[in-house]
Amino acid sequence: MSTLFPTPGDKANLESDVRLTPKFGPDGLVTCIVTDATSGEVLMLAHMNAEALALSIGTGIAHYWSRSRQELWRKGDTSGSVQTIVEMRVDCDQDAVWIKVEVGGSGASCHTGRRSCFYRSVPLGSAPAENTVLRFDEPSGS
Amino acid sequence: MSTLFPTPGDKANLESDVRLTPKFGPDGLVTCIVTDATSGEVLMLAHMNAEALALSIGTGIAHYWSRSRQELWRKGDTSGSVQTIVEMRVDCDQDAVWIKVEVGGSGASCHTGRRSCFYRSVPLGSAPAENTVLRFDEPSGS
Repeated sequence: MSTLFPTPGDKANLESDVRLTPKFGPDGLVTCIVTDATSGEVLMLAHMNAEALALSIGTGIAHYWSRSRQELWRKGDTSGSVQTIVEMRVDCDQDAVWIKVEVGGSGASCHTGRRSCFYRSVPLGSAPAENTVLRFDEPSGS
Repeated sequence: MSTLFPTPGDKANLESDVRLTPKFGPDGLVTCIVTDATSGEVLMLAHMNAEALALSIGTGIAHYWSRSRQELWRKGDTSGSVQTIVEMRVDCDQDAVWIKVEVGGSGASCHTGRRSCFYRSVPLGSAPAENTVLRFDEPSGS
């Protein structure tokens, strides 16, 4: 249990509370949706433990928990693409946050060097099949 | 292991593949970010198992896996707020999808009756404390 945030209450409490009482999962994480503050495009999906969430709120700079490296991660520390948080929102059951960010450095939020991790679109309207081909293209916000 | 999609390859494969090879987690799910196709605002965060993802692709109507009810869920079946998928994108490591939707019925995607689940914003710039108060307000796309 994190001591950085109050203990989450029941469902009704989580939904109506004016307090931030994040409901961390069994892995100690909440999910974080990251969008570009200007274009609105989704840049990446990441995870925060209590420390990363508290640091993000306190400093206004995006911090995450890397599940693959199992470590706290200040985005941009090695790449230079620091994310400044313009706005943070929390969802109804407080197990997900949405941050709108301005990206520094090269502007890449994806480790592949692209602005967004969502650089492929999926064709719709017929069931997925062996010959379904993704399209590589840049997303737009809406 | 799902038979609806090809088995995911290694990291390099997942990132560069033109095939959709979703990397479902230990719980059999990928995460799905849902945004409004017009405004760009984030409406909700949900989860899809292989069947929900295949149905979403095939029909163009959002299907999810409800973790609380442990059942396949065609969004809007009871509320009328069916989500028509305008675009679907997949992220670099293929464990998350982003869909842009048009919402039918009342336009509510949150079970609380609101358009978006992200109806509270979190004040930034000082460490979270007992007296931190969330603001109830409607999100915008960017």
